[in-house]
Amino acid sequence: MAKPTLAVVGATGAVGTVMCELLSARKNVWGEIRLLASARSAGRKVRCRGEELTVQELTAEAFDGVDVAMFDVPDEVSAQWGPAAVARGAVVVDNSGAFRLDRDVPLVVPEINPEQVRNRPRGIIANANCTTLAMIVAVAPLHREYGLRELVLASYQAVSGAGQIGVDTLYDQLSKIAGDRVLGSRPGNVRQAVGDDLGPFPAPMALNVVPWAGSLADGGWSTEELKLRNESRKILGLPDLKVSATCVRVPVVTAHSVAVHAVFGAEVDAEGAREALRNAPGVILVDDPAAGEFPMPIDAVGTDPSWVGRIRRSVDDPRALDFFVTGDNLRKGAALNTAQIAELLAAEFSSR
Amino acid sequence: MAKPTLAVVGATGAVGTVMCELLSARKNVWGEIRLLASARSAGRKVRCRGEELTVQELTAEAFDGVDVAMFDVPDEVSAQWGPAAVARGAVVVDNSGAFRLDRDVPLVVPEINPEQVRNRPRGIIANANCTTLAMIVAVAPLHREYGLRELVLASYQAVSGAGQIGVDTLYDQLSKIAGDRVLGSRPGNVRQAVGDDLGPFPAPMALNVVPWAGSLADGGWSTEELKLRNESRKILGLPDLKVSATCVRVPVVTAHSVAVHAVFGAEVDAEGAREALRNAPGVILVDDPAAGEFPMPIDAVGTDPSWVGRIRRSVDDPRALDFFVTGDNLRKGAALNTAQIAELLAAEFSSR
Repeated sequence: MAKPTLAVVGATGAVGTVMCELLSARKNVWGEIRLLASARSAGRKVRCRGEELTVQELTAEAFDGVDVAMFDVPDEVSAQWGPAAVARGAVVVDNSGAFRLDRDVPLVVPEINPEQVRNRPRGIIANANCTTLAMIVAVAPLHREYGLRELVLASYQAVSGAGQIGVDTLYDQLSKIAGDRVLGSRPGNVRQAVGDDLGPFPAPMALNVVPWAGSLADGGWSTEELKLRNESRKILGLPDLKVSATCVRVPVVTAHSVAVHAVFGAEVDAEGAREALRNAPGVILVDDPAAGEFPMPIDAVGTDPSWVGRIRRSVDDPRALDFFVTGDNLRKGAALNTAQIAELLAAEFSSR
Repeated sequence: MAKPTLAVVGATGAVGTVMCELLSARKNVWGEIRLLASARSAGRKVRCRGEELTVQELTAEAFDGVDVAMFDVPDEVSAQWGPAAVARGAVVVDNSGAFRLDRDVPLVVPEINPEQVRNRPRGIIANANCTTLAMIVAVAPLHREYGLRELVLASYQAVSGAGQIGVDTLYDQLSKIAGDRVLGSRPGNVRQAVGDDLGPFPAPMALNVVPWAGSLADGGWSTEELKLRNESRKILGLPDLKVSATCVRVPVVTAHSVAVHAVFGAEVDAEGAREALRNAPGVILVDDPAAGEFPMPIDAVGTDPSWVGRIRRSVDDPRALDFFVTGDNLRKGAALNTAQIAELLAAEFSSR
């Protein structure tokens, strides 16, 4: 039985680059791999799975013979080309926001709801938002144990969540403020030193935190905050889950963190929660404050699991847990989860 | 009537330095000002209120004739010398944690509970923790409006909260990672670049967030997180207030931020909340996401008020508000609130 053909759309972006690394490192389940990108990137050579592949231009014909197409592109590109790929016979795994809340598109996290992969009337499966993904692999086992009712979330999001330009912007700003040791101590000085080039952010990122991610939605909410609510409900199958989130960008390169306050139907205890997480897939438990061990971006970056720690039962609520989770937003937050979904599909082909 | 004599204990530290600036800038209500510090700092000259003052060594006799003594020193120094100053006739305003939860010591925020200044059986009045202070001046007016029941908090704390050494450590680490644009993308690289000198922090601060502040207490809680709970209850006079906090250190020099989820007894609305905050003392409302206006450390640093914004009513709870607040942890978080309490005491002297 020939292995299925895989297309990676957006192969030269921040997430696409991680995707090629993953394809090189993970157990190989694919036959031909095709790398697709904009005309601007076509012709570029990219190393993938031990081969040097030439990036092809994204066209409808490029999907001929493709069994699975992973999309790592902006919403509007997925919206246009996802259905085109389906029309040519591919199953699409989309990492953008274009289809996530569509009733006929499952939102899959393989550790949580892998069976939803088969529920794809449109031929499209969606990958969740990066912040949702970092957090949900730790929340799901606790839901299974105690019955989740409510989440109150505050995020600490890395700049690579805004793409390579976000990373370049932070590094540029850090070099502008380097060497000046009084900048952070007076209003206006960081803004002056950073100047007008804010990159994809509404304010300077160096020596700052910016309580904004995504675009403005109703009621003053950001789209990022509403994604945390709507996607968590869908992934966990909890349409009435109460969720409040405040999303904040911080001067970290890669790995999003979330401070989680989770309220359950049953009484909880910290040691029981640790045990559930110790045994949970896709999660590493790092929880020994006395030894200085907590989940942090500089340790989680470049690794596959979400790191969870600081697990405490709320002092005033025996049904609530407080904890901290961090995960590489380009890996589990994007490329890895997408690759894992694609591998579920590849297994379908093998079983035919 | 002669103006009262003021002593500033810990005059040469990070907070003491801001105190001298404030004394120079605020309306003068003091007669003689005496600067006290350790023997190591005695003899140093410090500019304060237009005069050049010589720092004196901290001894019991140094308090003779002092009417009000402001302490900006570590807990153990306040614990030893606060009562000594009281014994010499001074009223003590203490910025440390030594006396904050003592039944006979009021915890005063002048915008909220100024009348508590007179309730001082031990002759000591305590200043709250810096993170509590940044947040509570925004929470109190909302409590008055809607009746607070619960707080779920996540902090973004600046490095100067750990003293000048915290600031130096961050700047040192930022210069170590400067110029290398791939560090943040692989596990271990930031740790390697930063090396062993972590300063007062348990982990590198550059390009990182560290979910820890203070020391380890029961149940895995940090002392900083328990202060947010215990001090908020005391300041607001709400002994049954439910509070959960996760305290996180971020690579910002000065100004602590808090993402707040506040639950009230009455239904709330965002515009009513904005109105209450617009009229509240010690608070600036900055809430126009479409225009890129939110509370941020680089704007709040060096200013007196707390900045509050991102005000939203929770989608799933009509009695809950989510918002973001930031305030200079050395000013309102420490020196300014202390100075404001001391000025309430100076007013007592004037009315004699």
